[in-house]
Amino acid sequence: MKVSFYQFAPEFGNIKHNLRKAEDVIASAATDLIVLPELFNTGYQFISKKEVKSLSEKIPSGFTTSAIIKLSVKKNIHIVAGIAENNKGKTYNSAVLTGPDGLIGVYRKTHLFYEEKLWFSPGDMGFKVWQTPLGNIGIMICFDWFFPESARTLALRGTDIIAHPSNLILPHCPDAMVTRCIENRVFAVTANRIGSEQRGDKEKLMFIGKSQITSPMGEILYRASEDKEELTVMEIAVEKAGDKNLNSFNNLFNDRKKEFYE
Amino acid sequence: MKVSFYQFAPEFGNIKHNLRKAEDVIASAATDLIVLPELFNTGYQFISKKEVKSLSEKIPSGFTTSAIIKLSVKKNIHIVAGIAENNKGKTYNSAVLTGPDGLIGVYRKTHLFYEEKLWFSPGDMGFKVWQTPLGNIGIMICFDWFFPESARTLALRGTDIIAHPSNLILPHCPDAMVTRCIENRVFAVTANRIGSEQRGDKEKLMFIGKSQITSPMGEILYRASEDKEELTVMEIAVEKAGDKNLNSFNNLFNDRKKEFYE
Repeated sequence: MKVSFYQFAPEFGNIKHNLRKAEDVIASAATDLIVLPELFNTGYQFISKKEVKSLSEKIPSGFTTSAIIKLSVKKNIHIVAGIAENNKGKTYNSAVLTGPDGLIGVYRKTHLFYEEKLWFSPGDMGFKVWQTPLGNIGIMICFDWFFPESARTLALRGTDIIAHPSNLILPHCPDAMVTRCIENRVFAVTANRIGSEQRGDKEKLMFIGKSQITSPMGEILYRASEDKEELTVMEIAVEKAGDKNLNSFNNLFNDRKKEFYE
Repeated sequence: MKVSFYQFAPEFGNIKHNLRKAEDVIASAATDLIVLPELFNTGYQFISKKEVKSLSEKIPSGFTTSAIIKLSVKKNIHIVAGIAENNKGKTYNSAVLTGPDGLIGVYRKTHLFYEEKLWFSPGDMGFKVWQTPLGNIGIMICFDWFFPESARTLALRGTDIIAHPSNLILPHCPDAMVTRCIENRVFAVTANRIGSEQRGDKEKLMFIGKSQITSPMGEILYRASEDKEELTVMEIAVEKAGDKNLNSFNNLFNDRKKEFYE
């Protein structure tokens, strides 16, 4: 199976433009699963609650989600896309998983970073895993990586591939995803954005690029540039994620000693 | 305060020789805390239970522990040393923490690697943290690093410095310790061994060296060579480990969402 990410620089507030860019790339991509960055349609640096409200949308009826669903169905592929969700007056930093039959699931970012706490409610649904013909797909968003419990929970619930829409600013994530993947024996597709944003009187944010596809053995199958728009498609052997045996004595999950963990 | 490790190649079964080497180095080291490798006194590759029994010792009365305690008291320093422990007929891959007043604590390796399962009982005491004048010291041994719960548990219990005696064979640990330290905001001193062992008809084991001192900010303060004997002493600002605030919005521990973790 082929997994991919689209690394690009969304333009703040220009949902039509950002969606169109993603649609054009996805239309031409020979992939089974593509992951788009966190908040790929809206951009990242909100400066007011009003702005978040106006740029967030209902799932699945919203403008972006509808289009992503259509594209998934038409192309017969799976898509994970980070968008700003509006649900019953609350806004979430969410990601949708869509497939050939439409919407499969929604994940709401559990661990909000920095000023995201001003604009979004923390995820209230926890970490879910969806069984698909491609394998079991789980989602975490950007800063969720920092908490080992995120990837661990997804893995213990059967995830083969962690789809990881991101807007990374701190430098550590690409290397840390190696640790996340070996400690859980899962694949990860981190789709980060590039470029910078500086809105209102906020500090300038530089996004680090380096989107990455990482294997259960801790191999960096591909790491993108820091600053270039890239669509990268890679073949992976998803069944490798199902084997939690490190050797004839050690099984990653059976060897856990829960009675000693805080 | 000054922390250090002694990276060397223990000679299998020659406890007197290995202890003497460590004693000589520690005698001349200007350090507050020194970490020795896993099984520093016995070597690593056991080939029979009889051998483990004969090379393991009681704590604190055993040959190695007595000597380490004496040295700690005489030098007025803390020492973490990996040794084979014998307790009520069971053998453990353990580490002792000693200080100016004698034995402070014992840790028994929780996650045994590969054929260690033939020779040792798994640790039955969990992860402990000891308050010392240097800061709160916790211990994990080698393969414990692979399980994020080890360092996490130590950190949640207040550890400032993870002493990490090791006999690393797999390549990933030095880089992964960066993740372990940033995700928990702790210091770590990984004391690995160098050299190789091939005993009986067992496969040859190559130890990777690369002992490392890592900061709570994920800085590799020092990484040793792959194959050279080294005593490395570094000054650290241990109070940095006490600050779990990543920024004005994010606190590493307060931001945990336990209700969503498996």
